[in-house]
Amino acid sequence: MTASDRTSTTGQPDYDRAEVRAVLAEAIAAGRTALTAPEGRRICAAYGIPTPGEALATSADQAAAQATQLGFPVVMKIVSPDILHKTEAGGVVVGVADADAARAAYQRIVANALAHRPDAAITGVQVQQLLTGGQEVIVGATTDPTFGKVVAFGLGGVLVEVLKDVTFRMAPISRAEAEGMLDDIAAAEVLRGVRGAAPVDAAGLAEVIARVGDLVTDFPQISEFDLNPVFATADGVCAADVRVLLDPEPAAPPPRPSEEDILRVMNRLMNPAAIAVIGASAEPGKIGNSVMRNLVDGGFAGQIFPINPRADEIMGHKVYRSVTDVPVDVDVAVFAVPAKLVPSALTECGHKGVPAAVLIPSGFAETGNTALQDEVVAIARQHGIRLLGPNIYGYYYTPRNLCATFCTPYDVTGGVALTSQSGGIGMAILGFSRTTRMGVSAIVGLGNKSDVDEDDLLTFFEHDDNTRCVAMHLEDLKDGRAFVETARRVTRRKPVVVLKAGRTALGARAASSHTGALAGDDKVYDDILRQAGVVRAPGLNEMLEYARGLPLLPTPAGENVVIITGAGGSGVLLSDACVDNGLRLMEIPDDLDAAFRRHIPPFGAAGNPIDITGGEPPSTYEATIRLGLTDPRVHALVLGYWHTIVTPPMVFAELTARVVAQARAEGIDKPVVASLAGDTEVEQACEHLFDHGIVAYPYTTERPVAVLGAKYRWARAAGLLGG
Amino acid sequence: MTASDRTSTTGQPDYDRAEVRAVLAEAIAAGRTALTAPEGRRICAAYGIPTPGEALATSADQAAAQATQLGFPVVMKIVSPDILHKTEAGGVVVGVADADAARAAYQRIVANALAHRPDAAITGVQVQQLLTGGQEVIVGATTDPTFGKVVAFGLGGVLVEVLKDVTFRMAPISRAEAEGMLDDIAAAEVLRGVRGAAPVDAAGLAEVIARVGDLVTDFPQISEFDLNPVFATADGVCAADVRVLLDPEPAAPPPRPSEEDILRVMNRLMNPAAIAVIGASAEPGKIGNSVMRNLVDGGFAGQIFPINPRADEIMGHKVYRSVTDVPVDVDVAVFAVPAKLVPSALTECGHKGVPAAVLIPSGFAETGNTALQDEVVAIARQHGIRLLGPNIYGYYYTPRNLCATFCTPYDVTGGVALTSQSGGIGMAILGFSRTTRMGVSAIVGLGNKSDVDEDDLLTFFEHDDNTRCVAMHLEDLKDGRAFVETARRVTRRKPVVVLKAGRTALGARAASSHTGALAGDDKVYDDILRQAGVVRAPGLNEMLEYARGLPLLPTPAGENVVIITGAGGSGVLLSDACVDNGLRLMEIPDDLDAAFRRHIPPFGAAGNPIDITGGEPPSTYEATIRLGLTDPRVHALVLGYWHTIVTPPMVFAELTARVVAQARAEGIDKPVVASLAGDTEVEQACEHLFDHGIVAYPYTTERPVAVLGAKYRWARAAGLLGG
Repeated sequence: MTASDRTSTTGQPDYDRAEVRAVLAEAIAAGRTALTAPEGRRICAAYGIPTPGEALATSADQAAAQATQLGFPVVMKIVSPDILHKTEAGGVVVGVADADAARAAYQRIVANALAHRPDAAITGVQVQQLLTGGQEVIVGATTDPTFGKVVAFGLGGVLVEVLKDVTFRMAPISRAEAEGMLDDIAAAEVLRGVRGAAPVDAAGLAEVIARVGDLVTDFPQISEFDLNPVFATADGVCAADVRVLLDPEPAAPPPRPSEEDILRVMNRLMNPAAIAVIGASAEPGKIGNSVMRNLVDGGFAGQIFPINPRADEIMGHKVYRSVTDVPVDVDVAVFAVPAKLVPSALTECGHKGVPAAVLIPSGFAETGNTALQDEVVAIARQHGIRLLGPNIYGYYYTPRNLCATFCTPYDVTGGVALTSQSGGIGMAILGFSRTTRMGVSAIVGLGNKSDVDEDDLLTFFEHDDNTRCVAMHLEDLKDGRAFVETARRVTRRKPVVVLKAGRTALGARAASSHTGALAGDDKVYDDILRQAGVVRAPGLNEMLEYARGLPLLPTPAGENVVIITGAGGSGVLLSDACVDNGLRLMEIPDDLDAAFRRHIPPFGAAGNPIDITGGEPPSTYEATIRLGLTDPRVHALVLGYWHTIVTPPMVFAELTARVVAQARAEGIDKPVVASLAGDTEVEQACEHLFDHGIVAYPYTTERPVAVLGAKYRWARAAGLLGG
Repeated sequence: MTASDRTSTTGQPDYDRAEVRAVLAEAIAAGRTALTAPEGRRICAAYGIPTPGEALATSADQAAAQATQLGFPVVMKIVSPDILHKTEAGGVVVGVADADAARAAYQRIVANALAHRPDAAITGVQVQQLLTGGQEVIVGATTDPTFGKVVAFGLGGVLVEVLKDVTFRMAPISRAEAEGMLDDIAAAEVLRGVRGAAPVDAAGLAEVIARVGDLVTDFPQISEFDLNPVFATADGVCAADVRVLLDPEPAAPPPRPSEEDILRVMNRLMNPAAIAVIGASAEPGKIGNSVMRNLVDGGFAGQIFPINPRADEIMGHKVYRSVTDVPVDVDVAVFAVPAKLVPSALTECGHKGVPAAVLIPSGFAETGNTALQDEVVAIARQHGIRLLGPNIYGYYYTPRNLCATFCTPYDVTGGVALTSQSGGIGMAILGFSRTTRMGVSAIVGLGNKSDVDEDDLLTFFEHDDNTRCVAMHLEDLKDGRAFVETARRVTRRKPVVVLKAGRTALGARAASSHTGALAGDDKVYDDILRQAGVVRAPGLNEMLEYARGLPLLPTPAGENVVIITGAGGSGVLLSDACVDNGLRLMEIPDDLDAAFRRHIPPFGAAGNPIDITGGEPPSTYEATIRLGLTDPRVHALVLGYWHTIVTPPMVFAELTARVVAQARAEGIDKPVVASLAGDTEVEQACEHLFDHGIVAYPYTTERPVAVLGAKYRWARAAGLLGG
């Protein structure tokens, strides 16, 4: 019987929750943190998870009769509350082949058990169908510190244990998601049938996976749940062994403000009318001075209120002794005072009704002073203040010319919002932005994340029309579920790029010593972020390049990528890069091939890459690029330029920008990326192309394709490619 | 019995080559291209490759006796020249368990065979040990178009077939190399024993692999050889099935000039006293003009002879009508004439005794005109001229100020020699070199590689004291064995970086349409290049960055890498990058940990990364870097800088350069790389660091570690890390 059989008539699972509740209550009442095998099977039965036929024998003859009824071979195992390690006790016989053997096995098992532990209470001997054949797989669930209940699926057996070929999803999961898990392991082909084997019952297997997800969602006190192995054949699925661990007091999900509450405060934080600078200073070199100067020099148009008990005026702004003295409502208080002064000043903000505090100072949890951070968080909670930081460089929101930071102003307004958990990474973001003139909507430091975190910011950026793409550096997530739910929503509309640091075991160790945060297992992060539609950047530079490029590229309408290159050598490398980045080189239809051939020399190679050859004039580049843009079957272009006297770099850049602009004017907007091989003039040509919405790099064939690949990964996950 | 048993007494294989010769001769004489199973086993026996014990029975009683002697279970199979499909004929019984069963099986098999084909001649019934248990593996050999005979090893079974977990080596291979292959598959752990299983007989398995390598080397007419499956247990190794394919007329290895001959001509090519420019021109825009100008403007100190029947003087140099008119010996003739004029001019070079011709023109094999290329090659062979190209940009050799190219002069002399098969990639090399001021010894275009190829150049660079590192872009190798043998020699002394384009199936297709070269399977390239000690660059930009960085970094003395960072966030990402690049973060000994702690704030994290925290003055960076350099247990430093007011970028750069220089003056030279996070001033700081031998990048944590990782990969392969 397959699990899907059980649900085929109604389509709705027929869960017996009362039965599970009873099993768990009994075990927890007895102070146990693990279920027995029979209890595990009761739970499986209650959730329609198929297990092998079995019976409990209390005599040798009964064992023989039961085995005959179940069908040989069977496996027989001691059942005793006093014997935990059955194999060690000689309490297991595998492959019992007939009735006589069953009788003998019964007697041997009981005798061994009593020899092992003479005072053991013998409940009996379990007689169970021995499952063989089919494919061994593992279905399980565990409680992840970041994401809560997660479901795991992988192939069983020694090889996969070694190769760690397993995939995770946040529970609960739909049947469709569960079927997706089957395709998401490296050895997925095995399930589809190889070397003449029949494919396994994928629907039945997905059903079991989904039911496990439902079970641990319904019963959070199940901390770990293992079906290992599960035998999957063409005809059905059966879990040979069940292991259930309990946590009688599972952690409650973290409290979560409503989307409305988040938006209300985040809007005041990012679009403030009035900002107070706690610890504003006239003395250069002080943080309170840098913050004032950046607010003023950055051109913030709202009101600025310096707060300092020992000054009268700073940069032409009247100074107040306390934030409570400010005559108008204050939206944001930026703290530039030493850590120890934060609690009292924050209390005053509470009295004033300030909704958001930006805590630049360090000296909190990151230096081991968790008590002070806890105190500050408690004050904030008491007064309903949301906290950004502490231990941050501040934040930028360019549409408001808002530079509330001790760094330097940034004024290239554009579509990408960037956040960082670490100050150093924030500085790298700023430097990279400035040198590439990257168009930015916001740069926000999150630091210790005592309160405001990535999902608060994502919620704001989701509704912020100035932001078209979000890029986040993070080392941990305080509430993985909140992040995933928000990200799932946001990524349907805007790309979200995440650089998750601490990817590796060694990296995670460093993360732990840095923030005190327990970094989750990277494989869990990787699978779940991908499922949330997030584009994961493999490193810092990739995050920055994706951030720069993604908002410029329009969303492709389909998977057909075409390479047009003046350098055959670049064409080969660009092809390599396409495959590395999961892009599909279009099979060029005959008529389109013929059309391209009309523009290129007879020894040039059509097909894909289209090699226009090296010595061609601007008109050849122009004609072939135009053809690629105007043919509706082509969805994205990768250009390979080769510096020649006949078509110098700026000529190529200008013609490409012009042809792309003409196409846009005609309503054709396809992503175009370019790799420029040539002398240093190609650098200026790349800048010109970037300025015109074409992602272009010199001296690399990989980077432009990687950015296009990131756009595709997002578009696929967002369901924008129609399949 | 294991194969190693057979050789344990002498250490020398006891091959029976006469037996193999006889088997092959018989099969080839009969016009067969495959051996029968018994022939395959004869070959295995001759080369000491264990196969299951077996015997031929001609009666039921004999079968029972033989089976008893071989040990049960056995498999029994009909032997008849008239029955090809044994199973179909009912001629196979597997798992015969005792003597009675053997008798019965004999009778059943013969009866079935005669029922299937009444007129069949029955030779008898084969009785064979049935192999079970242990680990199934595959050992094979094939004939690769690039590398000739290669040996393959992988795990057997469906999963590995799906996951393609297999490794290759060029035959013959030593026993040590063969043991290395066991560690070189992803699932290597399986062979070492997992889940309580005993490790397999690694020495025995390696012996079989090595013997297969010897066999196909001794008998090139064996085109393919498969042992599949081989059963490997703790006690021994046995090949259950053998498949041998023959090629009666195997391709002869390509002719190869002696190292002496190569060096003699390459020295005249790279260090010429006199150069003739065939097709020199006074007309700007002509290639023959560009080449002249670059030779002159580049500052070449030797003699330059323009050749042109219609000119008298070009750039102050007397023009000759033919190269035969030049009054002195000419070392190099650079061709800047249309393709069709090359044969006659090359013939004149032959008469003149010019040893090397540089063929810039295109219009040969790359445009389909292979006939013209063949003609040119034939002329060159006839006159003993070595050819560079055709279809190239020319070449540079900076120690001689030699710029024989139509591009632009390049004059930053340094330690890296770069070569490219494609002109576009050559232009990217030139642009990148110029913008990064990369110190270069040579840049050489190889184009169609009608004659001179990578191993000729490697041989020259091996002996060239101006070259400390070689970086090569290639799409194919004309003679993989020659390249590997040369590379093995060179990489013991200098890093060789290779960007092999056409890595992926799609990429390889493009390579094929570009050069007409048949690109080999990438996995074969990957394994064999690695075995040759070559550092493979994953992409163009990496090749260029490795080329720039490797000559600057001293060779590390050991595996202990230490990260010192001012930004905890960078520390996490640098740790990730170290793991990604196979670097080992040192476990810091207690005394060294205490020594670091003396320099950093109490809340900073020692351990590794050493997080000195963000607000520290220059003295903290200086003290910790000095400590890392002077402690002899530390072998390489990775620095993470965070831009602050307290320690601005150039202050960090200058102090780091100074401390490293001081250490060098004291005889301590360790590789130091740095990642700089900060505002745009970090770019200038990185340049300063590069100028002082420290590989440093802004806005990336990955790139500096990748360059260090490449240095380590080379040093390990060259055996310089002592294990």
